[in-house]
Amino acid sequence: MGDSMATSSNHANNTYRGKAPKYVFLFIGDGMSFPQITSAEMYLGQKNGTKALTSEYLSFSKFPAAGTALTYDAESFIPDSASTATALATGEKTLGGVINMDVTKQIEFTPISKKLKEQGKKIGIVSSVPITHATPACFYSNVPSRRMAYEIGLQLADSDFDFYAGGSFDQPTGADKDKVHILDVVKSKGYNVINTKEEILELNSESGKTVAISPVLDGNAMTYEIDRKADELALSDFVKKGIEVLDNKDGFFMMVESGKIDWAGHANDAAASIHDTIQFSKAIDEAVEFYNKHPKDTLIIVTGDHECGGMSIGFAGTGYETFFNKIDRVTMSQSKFNGIVKEYKENTSKDKAKLSDLYDEIKNAYGLIAPTDEDAKKEENKSMVLTQYEINRLEEALKQSMRDSEDRIYTDQEKVMYGYYEPLSITLTHILNNKAGIDYTSFSHTGLPVPVYAIGVGHELFNGYYDNTDIYEKLAAITKVK
Amino acid sequence: MGDSMATSSNHANNTYRGKAPKYVFLFIGDGMSFPQITSAEMYLGQKNGTKALTSEYLSFSKFPAAGTALTYDAESFIPDSASTATALATGEKTLGGVINMDVTKQIEFTPISKKLKEQGKKIGIVSSVPITHATPACFYSNVPSRRMAYEIGLQLADSDFDFYAGGSFDQPTGADKDKVHILDVVKSKGYNVINTKEEILELNSESGKTVAISPVLDGNAMTYEIDRKADELALSDFVKKGIEVLDNKDGFFMMVESGKIDWAGHANDAAASIHDTIQFSKAIDEAVEFYNKHPKDTLIIVTGDHECGGMSIGFAGTGYETFFNKIDRVTMSQSKFNGIVKEYKENTSKDKAKLSDLYDEIKNAYGLIAPTDEDAKKEENKSMVLTQYEINRLEEALKQSMRDSEDRIYTDQEKVMYGYYEPLSITLTHILNNKAGIDYTSFSHTGLPVPVYAIGVGHELFNGYYDNTDIYEKLAAITKVK
Repeated sequence: MGDSMATSSNHANNTYRGKAPKYVFLFIGDGMSFPQITSAEMYLGQKNGTKALTSEYLSFSKFPAAGTALTYDAESFIPDSASTATALATGEKTLGGVINMDVTKQIEFTPISKKLKEQGKKIGIVSSVPITHATPACFYSNVPSRRMAYEIGLQLADSDFDFYAGGSFDQPTGADKDKVHILDVVKSKGYNVINTKEEILELNSESGKTVAISPVLDGNAMTYEIDRKADELALSDFVKKGIEVLDNKDGFFMMVESGKIDWAGHANDAAASIHDTIQFSKAIDEAVEFYNKHPKDTLIIVTGDHECGGMSIGFAGTGYETFFNKIDRVTMSQSKFNGIVKEYKENTSKDKAKLSDLYDEIKNAYGLIAPTDEDAKKEENKSMVLTQYEINRLEEALKQSMRDSEDRIYTDQEKVMYGYYEPLSITLTHILNNKAGIDYTSFSHTGLPVPVYAIGVGHELFNGYYDNTDIYEKLAAITKVK
Repeated sequence: MGDSMATSSNHANNTYRGKAPKYVFLFIGDGMSFPQITSAEMYLGQKNGTKALTSEYLSFSKFPAAGTALTYDAESFIPDSASTATALATGEKTLGGVINMDVTKQIEFTPISKKLKEQGKKIGIVSSVPITHATPACFYSNVPSRRMAYEIGLQLADSDFDFYAGGSFDQPTGADKDKVHILDVVKSKGYNVINTKEEILELNSESGKTVAISPVLDGNAMTYEIDRKADELALSDFVKKGIEVLDNKDGFFMMVESGKIDWAGHANDAAASIHDTIQFSKAIDEAVEFYNKHPKDTLIIVTGDHECGGMSIGFAGTGYETFFNKIDRVTMSQSKFNGIVKEYKENTSKDKAKLSDLYDEIKNAYGLIAPTDEDAKKEENKSMVLTQYEINRLEEALKQSMRDSEDRIYTDQEKVMYGYYEPLSITLTHILNNKAGIDYTSFSHTGLPVPVYAIGVGHELFNGYYDNTDIYEKLAAITKVK
């Protein structure tokens, strides 16, 4: 380090002279930054009977190297997942919505996954949201708009990558529903497409090119972890199977996205965020187990692409207190509760709708208790009893929820309170968050930097404070793709 | 790194085998975490005509080492400045409010500053808030409660440290105003106490033990940077002078706190936060200049003690957009605007109060323009014009502001909207923040981790993800105090 270091602009250390790792894992928590990680660790800390946040709880927060990456894109301090995944996969900044192309949408960038395939490595792409979504798409396709899901699917079919798993395909027959079904295209390119638990659990190194779709889907995404039944496959199962499929003497690269941390952030759903982050850590545990067997040949990187929701551990109404135990009262995602609201709406005329009709459902889903409920008297439930102010907010929200979304005329205040979400559900989520000492500022992403954690061959390069494009540069240097 | 690293709990690297630095700077941005730093860099980026956040703007964000520290204390995930400064100064976790004592408030901890004094180094303590405030106090005193400002002052007088500067003393004649004036006590211990610009600018290495109090104070703190007149001394001036006073062949340790980043966080005052963070960076520039002359003998560490306010670059009403140029419209701190509200209140009867009386003041302070104002028609002002919803909020806030604070009865919603702040001022601040794309969740601290940046001798130890107590452990190892 010379005297001029403090005024040098190019301060990221992207030089590597060691040997390249055979096995590389890149885990991307979509919408996962410090608040999402810290809240999950605090939740687990509280559950383990301590207020101490000892970093013992999530596998990746004790990795030996850790840094921080800035996430701005070519047009905005607040980026989207297309531009950030382009940065991670190719080292290039681009516009929001663009998948691996430049700001003119003319020049294609080559993702590191393709470069590593050229080295002879097997390639795996896993995501808990649709496999054609922006983050995974940036590792196998180039399109001017993330909305071109069918085109992305066609490029997946042509990628000749070895393992795709998790969510399914958006626009399976194209935006106009007039194309050959994407799964038929994928099969025609030699892929083994499976979607039963039995088939997935049988996967091994002899399985050949595979697309393994979760048997249980919510839309084309895997369910939120908080909604997953114990016997259903988790993200960690797909990572475990991916390792078995990909493991070979020439090595592999696996990108794993936990996409619903982001969706939980958009919906301000702290409980869903915490549970998906914990499941993400379990998925990373699978890679750590592999690393422990091959420590001299493996590199694991864990990062987020951007923050989502402006989550804070700290709310104006609770000051310096947090109550993570209240997160344990939540039994389902906001998304799942929307189904209950939808059903109620279908079976109730607008003028007959009463919040009290839903009190049992609210108690079951959020642990929030009506003051008229017998359970409201129990000491352990006191802090979960709805106040009159909260009931008023829920009554107003229910009125809006009973309208069709196109008939909802919002005041400026309501726009900020509900966003594009189901008014009753989002209000319940906000009330529960606030009781736990958590609050959000937005339904969109924010400009917060993201942490980067690394263990294994070359991990030391990931220390420091740098740009998200440097994550690619470091990985490219370590794997010697350029 | 062994195979078991990934499951080891004690993962922080606190071992150092190099030589100790002669000159050590510890800069603490109170209430400064990623959002405060990133918003300042974005503000400067936007001002420089680019949307790119290139890390070019603040001196410390390009330091060659950077890590992240967790901030929880012995009782809470959301800590205060007493427990966090105790962690930084002594490596020990304690309760909120406690200065360098254990959780039983019986055992005293010795701060690193005293250990470095024993090594023969000169010691300087600089703060933009009262010099008896929690953060500076943790570097020279031990008391069971941060509220014991007079006792803290007495311990300052007995410290025999070489340079104190910035804010003044809280409780100068004790909590009951019956004690000898603290400045007389301090003088009686051999300190040169000065508070004029002329005296301060004459300070040099021959000045002897000095207490240099800012000639311009707001209470006992220095003014917010946004309120500072160009010819008034800034935090950077006190650091520059501190270096001149302390510089000697045996070396020195200087702790510098930027305390009003925290106060701006509590008040959700984004403009004040950004300007104080930029001034903090200028103060750090003074140390960097010194480092550039003595690169082999100097270590500079920059960190925060905790986040404050739950600041996010991202608001529900502005989505993916930010408008940092609107921060430029703000000409004073919320604290200063409170003086305007106070004066109006003193000169206006409650039933005659009208928001429109204050439109000119509001425009001058916040750049927010009433729709009736001629300037509202100008294209460049369109986005600064108050909406009817915003005017309604301000009218309600003014009603509360016209009451004495003990007569304000808040609804649950108002409690969260106003906290303990002047209702009209905080509402104006929130409206301005939101127009800029910034929002806060709390009037208190939050549980977000903080960044740590380092340059110089031993800087590499500050890479990684660790506890705030590890900052002490690293510094203690590098300076060989234990």
